[in-house]
Amino acid sequence: MDFAAVYHKTSEQMSYPLDEDRLIVNLKTGYDVKRVFIIHGDPFDAGILGGSERWSGQRKEIVYKKRLPHQLWWTTTLNPPYKRCKYYFELHTDGEVWYYFEDGFLTEEQVNMPGRLLQYFIVPWMNPADVNRTPSWVNDTVWYQIFPDRFCNGTPDRDDPDILPWQTGPVTNKEKYGGDLEGIRGKLPYLKDLGITGIYLNPIMEAETNHKYDTKDYTKIDPSFGDNAGMRRLVDNAHSMGIRVMVDAVFNHCGRKFAPWLDVLEKGADSPYSGWFMVNDWSQIAKTGNTRDGRFYSFAFADWMPKLNTNNPEVIDYFCGVCEQWIREFDIDAIRFDVGNEVSHRFLKEMRRRLKRIRPDIYLLGEIWHDASQWLMGDEYDSVMNYPLMSGIHDYFLDASMDKKELEYMVNRCYTMYMQQNNNVLFNLLDSHDTERLMNRFHDPDIFYQQLAVLFTLPGSPCIYYGTEIAMEGGFDPDCRRCMPWDEIGTAENQEKIGLMKQLIRIRQTEETCRSPHFHFPNQYPDRRCVEYIKLDPDNRELEVVLNCSDGPLNVGEGGEILFARKYDRGILEKNGTLIRKKAL
Amino acid sequence: MDFAAVYHKTSEQMSYPLDEDRLIVNLKTGYDVKRVFIIHGDPFDAGILGGSERWSGQRKEIVYKKRLPHQLWWTTTLNPPYKRCKYYFELHTDGEVWYYFEDGFLTEEQVNMPGRLLQYFIVPWMNPADVNRTPSWVNDTVWYQIFPDRFCNGTPDRDDPDILPWQTGPVTNKEKYGGDLEGIRGKLPYLKDLGITGIYLNPIMEAETNHKYDTKDYTKIDPSFGDNAGMRRLVDNAHSMGIRVMVDAVFNHCGRKFAPWLDVLEKGADSPYSGWFMVNDWSQIAKTGNTRDGRFYSFAFADWMPKLNTNNPEVIDYFCGVCEQWIREFDIDAIRFDVGNEVSHRFLKEMRRRLKRIRPDIYLLGEIWHDASQWLMGDEYDSVMNYPLMSGIHDYFLDASMDKKELEYMVNRCYTMYMQQNNNVLFNLLDSHDTERLMNRFHDPDIFYQQLAVLFTLPGSPCIYYGTEIAMEGGFDPDCRRCMPWDEIGTAENQEKIGLMKQLIRIRQTEETCRSPHFHFPNQYPDRRCVEYIKLDPDNRELEVVLNCSDGPLNVGEGGEILFARKYDRGILEKNGTLIRKKAL
Repeated sequence: MDFAAVYHKTSEQMSYPLDEDRLIVNLKTGYDVKRVFIIHGDPFDAGILGGSERWSGQRKEIVYKKRLPHQLWWTTTLNPPYKRCKYYFELHTDGEVWYYFEDGFLTEEQVNMPGRLLQYFIVPWMNPADVNRTPSWVNDTVWYQIFPDRFCNGTPDRDDPDILPWQTGPVTNKEKYGGDLEGIRGKLPYLKDLGITGIYLNPIMEAETNHKYDTKDYTKIDPSFGDNAGMRRLVDNAHSMGIRVMVDAVFNHCGRKFAPWLDVLEKGADSPYSGWFMVNDWSQIAKTGNTRDGRFYSFAFADWMPKLNTNNPEVIDYFCGVCEQWIREFDIDAIRFDVGNEVSHRFLKEMRRRLKRIRPDIYLLGEIWHDASQWLMGDEYDSVMNYPLMSGIHDYFLDASMDKKELEYMVNRCYTMYMQQNNNVLFNLLDSHDTERLMNRFHDPDIFYQQLAVLFTLPGSPCIYYGTEIAMEGGFDPDCRRCMPWDEIGTAENQEKIGLMKQLIRIRQTEETCRSPHFHFPNQYPDRRCVEYIKLDPDNRELEVVLNCSDGPLNVGEGGEILFARKYDRGILEKNGTLIRKKAL
Repeated sequence: MDFAAVYHKTSEQMSYPLDEDRLIVNLKTGYDVKRVFIIHGDPFDAGILGGSERWSGQRKEIVYKKRLPHQLWWTTTLNPPYKRCKYYFELHTDGEVWYYFEDGFLTEEQVNMPGRLLQYFIVPWMNPADVNRTPSWVNDTVWYQIFPDRFCNGTPDRDDPDILPWQTGPVTNKEKYGGDLEGIRGKLPYLKDLGITGIYLNPIMEAETNHKYDTKDYTKIDPSFGDNAGMRRLVDNAHSMGIRVMVDAVFNHCGRKFAPWLDVLEKGADSPYSGWFMVNDWSQIAKTGNTRDGRFYSFAFADWMPKLNTNNPEVIDYFCGVCEQWIREFDIDAIRFDVGNEVSHRFLKEMRRRLKRIRPDIYLLGEIWHDASQWLMGDEYDSVMNYPLMSGIHDYFLDASMDKKELEYMVNRCYTMYMQQNNNVLFNLLDSHDTERLMNRFHDPDIFYQQLAVLFTLPGSPCIYYGTEIAMEGGFDPDCRRCMPWDEIGTAENQEKIGLMKQLIRIRQTEETCRSPHFHFPNQYPDRRCVEYIKLDPDNRELEVVLNCSDGPLNVGEGGEILFARKYDRGILEKNGTLIRKKAL
């Protein structure tokens, strides 16, 4: 047996309570393992620990599995009657049987050796307070991300002198175009018509730049966007239309005009806020220019974005209070934490405790680009921005040398990194204000819709970036932040694209299979780049997604109810074609 | 390359800050990997995330490694100047080079493909509040576990009528023999002379049984053991002799006479304490007999040990208050949490927060018999009872078919499960009130001292169970709880054994190599059961431990300063012989 390929532990996503009754147990093995059994039971069935009793459990075969690049992922669900569970695995290759315990692999003879102290896997107690719980509404939500300065100017009569005329070409990081909250409010009917049920707003609190990631005042809406009452009006209007609202919280760092930072600049180490930042050399604090000299820590070496010390209990208390105010004053539904991996875990644990107390179903989303398992244990974020999925999808379409199996492996990796509760609310996106735009990557509408078909059919909570409904172009930041071309929205071409987006959103919302966490890759079409996966709902209804990523047409058969199709005709899917269909039962 | 054998992640013990400056990075690979490099640097060296910049880091070879059964464990330490780190690995087999990123393995060509979104490993920020910190005094401590009813009766004139005469033969779980706190206090000079610097007391709060794991009153010393003032006297005396004191906290369950449980039995669901327990069927609560019917949850189905609901904030607050009282009233140094894996994580996180606030160097020890990594992330326990090491040592001596490599693998497994901070204070033991006694396992003094030699030379904090200094016998619980034979302590045989124990303890305390976290297995003696390992201190001074577990004499050479030897003479180590020596520099 390939021992090194076998992996299990009784924590993280490998073994965890899905709720107060169900225990999910996952196991990785090599491809040489053909059958797996779990022998499980109550740890105290044969007396207490340390004694001479022999314990035996019930034997159950594990049948569900996913393929990873070099391992199989086996998964099963147990219902421990007394909330605790003891288990080991029985692994069968073609010629061998091994028993897998916490300390390694034993033969049957070793398992039965008198006196041997067997080290079973133990789930000691499924405590309700420790169950990882995420808000259920998020899986039903289709998000729309808005960069406020560039979405819609609702009050052109009140523009400050520094506002430039709306224009739809390339942009830099200097200009302001006057988009505001009233503009967004005015477009709520448009968003509702599109099918959107959640908007995610980039920062709206007072700041100097157009992107507002350099906060000056965390309690006050930026005057160029509106005022606090206007924000409440926007949220109330959105709620009345069934649209949730998420705001962006920039707590890793502040802007250079944040009052405590100004105080520190003035008073140095004597400032009552001296512990709010991470200053290493007080004599150099007023110096300008990048912070590679380490005089203080800042975001990405930017001296105008000093890092907040989220280790400090005062800072923790202050920003928890800020979020409590936002919830009470604006009635928001969700908070996205910018640079959500650099703030301290202690900060996030306290934040969650305080916010879930006043709003149990608030959605706490971290901006984390890498494996975020340590933030998703149930006491910090509910979810993270699923950039690994975005990158994986992109790389598959970029690199024609990759076999469809590699996409399968990548998707399976993304959905075996976290617990199912988190997978259900993963914030799936294909682009954002921090990346080039989806349409910009390949400049090909067919590949564009292939990727969107994936976005709307995988587990999680899909988000489109404003303008994606009309396939807006835009390069890396800042060019991905162009103004929304409202004057051109009614063209036949744009209306056709909007129609396609509506169709995808409607499928997501009407088909439970789209939202379900269950899927598999049957690989029934022989072509090496013909991606196919099946989504299943709890009643085993099936939705099939097929993407032809090869160089020529493919026969994918007829039948089923076609929900979305591009470059498909009577069983033939052309190059770069997309097909989503309900399988006949 | 054996891809399935390669494992890394940016959390748990695989990648963590050792302190505010040093980042430990560990990696598992197959044995086919011959060289490993890490390419590391600041994540923002080439601009912010999501952009089109190309990042490159510094390349460093990783040279330290340990052997696991099917994998190599590579380890290195980095000093990220700005508290954050981005990295990937370069793996060399004899014929291949692969680049290992968070999402998998790439060729050089793939790494350099334009537009590819490389998923690096990221340590976003080493926040001081999240650093796992454990009390430094514990690594210097040699513990002595005392089962109070059976250690020494210091007040025989005050015995209750149910106290039986002291006797040194087998015992059952019914009798009480009158051991008490005054008895322990009177033996402190004996313990100090032995070299003990910490005592761990099994429960001493008021309870019905002799073992006191069925607490009646958490605030009051059991009257048969003494009173609260007597406990403070014991601790003060111990402290004046350089001996720390650890008590046993039984918070997973209570006894049937605990006042809130009595109230619940009387008033049912109307009791103000109804939420303090885990009752499923109020109509059956008064029934006696085991709880397999699930009417309420209890420890190991014992109806007289109802489980406390450590999910309930009131319960959490109550028991945090109890521990705060113990610290203030008794001045204790450490708390061992009984059934420390079944209480909720929420409970333990709050407990740690509250106790470290009033006593920053208190040692919080969990009774956990299995992989406890999820409790050792820095915000719950400092350490756990190292039963996996005990089991591994035992199984090696039990099973003569095992090669010495398997002991090496087992020891390496035990010291690669947790972060180094936890390894430094792991509570190492070879027996306890919950197992048969060490001497009982093989009834062989030579094997007995071989195992003790391991106990005193591995990283962590060693503990001997009372009576082990005279090699007391005793079977599984309750027989492992026999009375200490003070009348026979002066026999030549016992004095000789005590002399050996003193020698082992003195080596532990005078040789920094013994306490150091660093060791390796050079395997220079060819015999398949001749165990040898080298401990190293920070100045690379070496201590060699050799155990002959084979069937005949072995030549292990002469030289070095011999610190402890059994069955060794002029280079020849007899069967079951033990040798600890300082290597000449």
